[in-house]
Amino acid sequence: MTERTLGRGVAVVGAGMSKFGTFPGRATRDLFVDAFLEMRASVDLGLDPEVIEALYIGNYSSDLFEGQGHTAPIMADWVGLTPRPATRIEDACASSGVAFREGLIAVASGMYDVVLVGGIEKMSDLPTERVTDTLATAGDAIYEIPAGFTFPGFYAAMATAYMDRYGAAPKTFMRVGIKNHENGALNAKAQFGLRIADIMESKKKRAADKGRPIPEWADELAFLEDERANPTISWPMRLFDCSPISDGAAALLLVAEDIADRFTNRPLLVIGSGQASDAALHDRPDPTTIRAARIAADQAFAMAGIGRDAVDVAEVHDCFTIAEIIATEDLGFFAVGEGWKAVEDGRTARNGPRPINTSGGLKSKGHPVGASGAGQIVEIWKQLRGEAGDRQVSDAAVGLTHNVGGTGQTCVVHIFERRDQ
Amino acid sequence: MTERTLGRGVAVVGAGMSKFGTFPGRATRDLFVDAFLEMRASVDLGLDPEVIEALYIGNYSSDLFEGQGHTAPIMADWVGLTPRPATRIEDACASSGVAFREGLIAVASGMYDVVLVGGIEKMSDLPTERVTDTLATAGDAIYEIPAGFTFPGFYAAMATAYMDRYGAAPKTFMRVGIKNHENGALNAKAQFGLRIADIMESKKKRAADKGRPIPEWADELAFLEDERANPTISWPMRLFDCSPISDGAAALLLVAEDIADRFTNRPLLVIGSGQASDAALHDRPDPTTIRAARIAADQAFAMAGIGRDAVDVAEVHDCFTIAEIIATEDLGFFAVGEGWKAVEDGRTARNGPRPINTSGGLKSKGHPVGASGAGQIVEIWKQLRGEAGDRQVSDAAVGLTHNVGGTGQTCVVHIFERRDQ
Repeated sequence: MTERTLGRGVAVVGAGMSKFGTFPGRATRDLFVDAFLEMRASVDLGLDPEVIEALYIGNYSSDLFEGQGHTAPIMADWVGLTPRPATRIEDACASSGVAFREGLIAVASGMYDVVLVGGIEKMSDLPTERVTDTLATAGDAIYEIPAGFTFPGFYAAMATAYMDRYGAAPKTFMRVGIKNHENGALNAKAQFGLRIADIMESKKKRAADKGRPIPEWADELAFLEDERANPTISWPMRLFDCSPISDGAAALLLVAEDIADRFTNRPLLVIGSGQASDAALHDRPDPTTIRAARIAADQAFAMAGIGRDAVDVAEVHDCFTIAEIIATEDLGFFAVGEGWKAVEDGRTARNGPRPINTSGGLKSKGHPVGASGAGQIVEIWKQLRGEAGDRQVSDAAVGLTHNVGGTGQTCVVHIFERRDQ
Repeated sequence: MTERTLGRGVAVVGAGMSKFGTFPGRATRDLFVDAFLEMRASVDLGLDPEVIEALYIGNYSSDLFEGQGHTAPIMADWVGLTPRPATRIEDACASSGVAFREGLIAVASGMYDVVLVGGIEKMSDLPTERVTDTLATAGDAIYEIPAGFTFPGFYAAMATAYMDRYGAAPKTFMRVGIKNHENGALNAKAQFGLRIADIMESKKKRAADKGRPIPEWADELAFLEDERANPTISWPMRLFDCSPISDGAAALLLVAEDIADRFTNRPLLVIGSGQASDAALHDRPDPTTIRAARIAADQAFAMAGIGRDAVDVAEVHDCFTIAEIIATEDLGFFAVGEGWKAVEDGRTARNGPRPINTSGGLKSKGHPVGASGAGQIVEIWKQLRGEAGDRQVSDAAVGLTHNVGGTGQTCVVHIFERRDQ
């Protein structure tokens, strides 16, 4: 592995996001304006948008979701950046994580001093089966899709291989969902702001209101094991193991480190960045790991010059619950085959030693695919600045994001450090 | 306008392309392999692909054309670059011109020393009307497409406004097509390797062979004015004013200037780069110019520190014949309203004082939209190295590419100089 060094340091000095959810009648451009305005308000010393020199926008497929290609100039126009260069980046569900990396590289190159990075996706205009088909195009259209694979199927295959090899059970996956809903319930931007316990109680109440027999679920696990409450999508992945269909946008402001003090005295320095690619799942030797994530993480930690223990809080790509467990192993937080035990032991809980997905993750916060990577960075921004409210991790100074495209054909990892001035 | 300076110099040391045309049964990945292998063979001192650190791939919409998203890792895999970072760039028909700029920025940043830039598109799998619909998504899906606009319509609107204001006539546009087919007939990679005169003669011969009356066209203009030979698509744009539906790929190798001598002693230095965005056509004040092209050109010439007269050969974005005329004005080669006279006077011919589109342009070489920007750079590579064969411009030392997305919501301009060592 070649160690990477950038021409100059780059800092994040603003971050914002729209609410994630489903918003009939609102297009990506409308959601991006929400994110841009919140980002602008987050800049401590104020932001004159005139200083922004370029826009990088992560978007998976407005082509298929909205019948709109060439989205980047529209986003620039809608937030008043015309005629600045506007470039769309696509790497499936890693689109805006990679767009962030392009913004980082562009500032480091000297081409720009101030860059806006965005992520956008509007998925809910299509009926569910067409959303599933659209997402499937992030697999291999020649070798995988004709064989019948969709994304729940891909990740179910990874989950069964993982269970077989390491002894995890479907209950372990359910615990990931319970944890992430606990966190998302504390996040006003989350699509599902309810704990699993809340959902269970509301179902009981609805049954009672309608005069039906009240289900007797002993606890959240019993609720999630009830096929009627939590139907199987692709075994062992059930409904509550899958991230939802979402609309949303996020926005981040990157500047050269040496001018960060014009914007804030509390910037986040980007201390590590890594990106790797891989073959599609059918052509990889081991479905229990995402090789691109291991490589990207090694690059990012090498650039940062820190060890895994230095990370205080991490947002990882839990498009399915199994994906979070694999991610924590690929990142080196837990040994191979041990990630599921960490969940069982509560080690990845918000108040545990290794907090994962304090935002609620893709599972509870929502997964507007092209916006998810940028959304992860918004959470790290809040955590490292102590602005995460009831879900704040105490004394968080170093944060990490892990954003996967497809079944792992792309992974991008970033590490951030708070640098109060 | 801020003047841009890069962290370090960047050189092009290899270039190749597939044949452009329509290739049933071949996917973009197959065409990209063709381009990669020709690029590899073009590296004077040989290329070990192991030294390539990242891939930037320009592609407009494999999503809609082929039902394949997340294309960049597939392209990396198909040419043996896995697990290198692989990133897709989309800015409509400017996708690979912008991908080239991202490669330039990435090398300048210090993140990579050696980067592969590609452009790909496979358009011919769809029926023509669906190709037209797919291209239309590069307009505005809320404000323009529901009004009935397709791309021949957009550029026809620009052409009628231009004729009205400056006195050009449809014959002028036809002369652009005649010139570009003259050039393309000398390019073995061109989709249409025939001069208009050749096409006219073959139609006469076919009529004679079938015992039908032989059409009496006095010359090529008379042929092009015959509605049966050259039907109107959207007045004044006729069939021979429109670039074709094409499949194709191109590949370029970029390296840090200080290591270029490991690859060749005849590199092209990238001396200028500019990119700008704009609103969609319905929201722009003047349809006779592409504002983003003027801004991108000013940026590129300012970075290069040269005047317009220093450019020996240029490839400009002639998706329609009117677009070439507007491009030569936007680039500052001719005064506003004078570009059409330059065509009439033969000034843009291969042996004229201002050679434009020696490759045949998008009109004759073909327009696989996501590959066209990279394909333009392949022509400049050949011209500046004296490898353009019968279409060689003598003593060409400085070349320019001008690549437009949509109706001008994106434009990217690059300037290259031969630096023999």
